[in-house]
Amino acid sequence: MAGQEFDPALFQENDRTAPAADSRKIAAVGPLDCEAGGHIEDVEVAYETWGQLNSDASNAIVICHALSGDSHAIGWWDRIVGPGKAIDTDQYFVIGTNALGGCQGTSGPGTLDASGQRLGSRFPLVTMGDMVEVQKRLVSQLGIDRLHAVAGGSMGGMQALEWTKRGSVAKCWMTASCRAHSAMQIGINEAGRQAILREPQWCGGDFAVGEGPADGLSVARMIGHISYLSEASFGNKFGRGLQDKDAFDYNLGIEFQVESYLSYQGDKFTKRFDAGSYMVLTRAIDYYDCADLAGSDSEYLFTSFTSDWLYPTHQSVELEQMAVDAGRRVLRAEIDLPFGHDSFLLDGDLQAGIASDFLGA
Amino acid sequence: MAGQEFDPALFQENDRTAPAADSRKIAAVGPLDCEAGGHIEDVEVAYETWGQLNSDASNAIVICHALSGDSHAIGWWDRIVGPGKAIDTDQYFVIGTNALGGCQGTSGPGTLDASGQRLGSRFPLVTMGDMVEVQKRLVSQLGIDRLHAVAGGSMGGMQALEWTKRGSVAKCWMTASCRAHSAMQIGINEAGRQAILREPQWCGGDFAVGEGPADGLSVARMIGHISYLSEASFGNKFGRGLQDKDAFDYNLGIEFQVESYLSYQGDKFTKRFDAGSYMVLTRAIDYYDCADLAGSDSEYLFTSFTSDWLYPTHQSVELEQMAVDAGRRVLRAEIDLPFGHDSFLLDGDLQAGIASDFLGA
Repeated sequence: MAGQEFDPALFQENDRTAPAADSRKIAAVGPLDCEAGGHIEDVEVAYETWGQLNSDASNAIVICHALSGDSHAIGWWDRIVGPGKAIDTDQYFVIGTNALGGCQGTSGPGTLDASGQRLGSRFPLVTMGDMVEVQKRLVSQLGIDRLHAVAGGSMGGMQALEWTKRGSVAKCWMTASCRAHSAMQIGINEAGRQAILREPQWCGGDFAVGEGPADGLSVARMIGHISYLSEASFGNKFGRGLQDKDAFDYNLGIEFQVESYLSYQGDKFTKRFDAGSYMVLTRAIDYYDCADLAGSDSEYLFTSFTSDWLYPTHQSVELEQMAVDAGRRVLRAEIDLPFGHDSFLLDGDLQAGIASDFLGA
Repeated sequence: MAGQEFDPALFQENDRTAPAADSRKIAAVGPLDCEAGGHIEDVEVAYETWGQLNSDASNAIVICHALSGDSHAIGWWDRIVGPGKAIDTDQYFVIGTNALGGCQGTSGPGTLDASGQRLGSRFPLVTMGDMVEVQKRLVSQLGIDRLHAVAGGSMGGMQALEWTKRGSVAKCWMTASCRAHSAMQIGINEAGRQAILREPQWCGGDFAVGEGPADGLSVARMIGHISYLSEASFGNKFGRGLQDKDAFDYNLGIEFQVESYLSYQGDKFTKRFDAGSYMVLTRAIDYYDCADLAGSDSEYLFTSFTSDWLYPTHQSVELEQMAVDAGRRVLRAEIDLPFGHDSFLLDGDLQAGIASDFLGA
């Protein structure tokens, strides 16, 4: 792809999704024996849909979110999902779900028991396969036998990949993702987990509603944000700008704009995210290791971004080779944009054009 | 520089230095009015020397350490400093000091007052200029008017650069460093600082000896280690290897080797490092912003490493341009090694050859 000049107007926050409780529905999909050995009674999955399912139920697309996302794909992926967009809600029946283990309506550690207590550590560790199993049950309830497509970025891409191993899927689009986390990716997640686990308020995962390891979760989110951006993103957005001052105060408070940004993002995150979900989801990401695509009958599109140092392009090359080895039709594109890992959320142009062609072909 | 195959035998820890209390000396260099407004009575600086000062005191080299280093340069930079090495202790009189604000013998937040309490928050924030001022006083006490050279990597490179603005220095070698931290570099430091500041045991910096924010400091060190290595380093060292097991336990304990490594490094660090020093030194690093080299009469060598994403080569290009703009003689080399930022500690071959020529010319 051709390079682009940095456009500050294009650069926005990762999590500009607004909760859309009014459009969110909850489906009960029964008990689940988890791959890691746990058991969850009465799994519920939060989902939203846009567009109309056609008469032969052949136009459904499932969108899988990344670590901090939710079912509201038309919010967090607004440059990709909507009328006339790459995932065209005028053409497709689009389903967004909150992942198993998450905290936006689907069963997770923050789910309350009959006495109003968080499940906490009673909620087991889950896998990408478990997340896909829950989505499959929902899709089946919606009367869909085969998906036109499944799409997702980062953790969502892993779910999309796993869908093609376990479900019936014509097309799979993974963006800014990989088949298995590398040591460095695991390490970044682990630093965040340790920030949470080492805080007394973690309480083994069994903190009360409204309490919990806010400082640890905030630091984990700061670490995450650093990994989602690129040096160029940080530089263009903040440089060495000071926060509401003309000269250093020379103390340990906020001096630089980037410090303010990270603390703001970290603290905001704690208002909407359950620390238990952070542990369950990052564990599922790190555990995931797709060895091959044997048995898949899907077509694949893999997109990656030049400035994404968290999910570098060689991981998409590896995915491409895996699809080739399985005899599947595959497209791959590396897109030259400077926004780091967040490019997959911010780019409504380059990856959208490729994905639109892929989904419509 | 030519590329090299990854050699696991070359890959060792960042901090293999052993404290060398027996060879460490302490010099009293008087009171200091700090640039940021604070004042320190009775500054002491820990230092070590190797080799012999020649008759006209023209063969002295000062080595400045990085964030977690100390005066024992022959330990942490053993591939560069020693008999017959690039900084040849048979030829030069080599001086290693612990930086002002550090915690290995030089005055810092961990220095004890007359009642045995840490100075803590009574120790002021300092700048690279303050660190250099202390080193200058020491060098003067040692009877040296002009340094043959000053050398350092990372934070040590910043001190070396500042020496050429404030002191009398013939040659300056900066490796894996920059003229000013970028927003991303500040952000990485800030995530670590927040891990410390948000821990109750931080106590505003005034924790007791043997106490303190060990968990926050450990997390900060984990973040640091992630930034010091490259994806290739992590991959070659750990891959997805499990820690003392053949299959996942599926809990929140250590599963992967890389998790064990990070927690080990983090916890080990808390045994030898004062959290107050972590704050003071990272602040000094982030504050530093060398605008130009006006007034310098030094020659410069800047080395950088292809895999160092923390201090990328373009920052050395910027340094080179600054030296050119000041009319100084300058050499710059980008070295192709896969070890990330730690390359400057691990490479005793490529940068050593260049530095040896530069220092001897």
